[in-house]
Amino acid sequence: MKISITITLKDDVLDPQGKVVNQTLKNMGYRSIENVRQGKYFEINLNEKDEKKAKKISEEICEKLLTNTVIENYSISYK
Amino acid sequence: MKISITITLKDDVLDPQGKVVNQTLKNMGYRSIENVRQGKYFEINLNEKDEKKAKKISEEICEKLLTNTVIENYSISYK
Repeated sequence: MKISITITLKDDVLDPQGKVVNQTLKNMGYRSIENVRQGKYFEINLNEKDEKKAKKISEEICEKLLTNTVIENYSISYK
Repeated sequence: MKISITITLKDDVLDPQGKVVNQTLKNMGYRSIENVRQGKYFEINLNEKDEKKAKKISEEICEKLLTNTVIENYSISYK
């Protein structure tokens, strides 16, 4: 089973990397860009056919390792 | 218009960060994890209602700034 995890900073957390990308794009002439936020992305292959178990595992690894839940949100999608 | 861009390393490119995450998860006892690949994620707010133009802009900024097309793939989704 293939799992995609997207981790983004919470809305009220400053994102300096995103700001730099935003400013760079503006300097390159892209005036229609309003805001850029950067995040992380993980693609995980799980050897687990039971969807419930796969869901439990992926939520656990998000909480325990991948995400800093104080400042970040995660979303998981299953394929 | 909100645009999500996911950037991943091409399949034949080594991903040391992903390997470390993979190994760490294994050490934590998650035996069902086969493979982890890490990527980047961008959320961009575009002040552009014309979908065609928005598509053109987002492809351009992927090619010109966000992605190293030699080793990375990008995918864009529109909301």
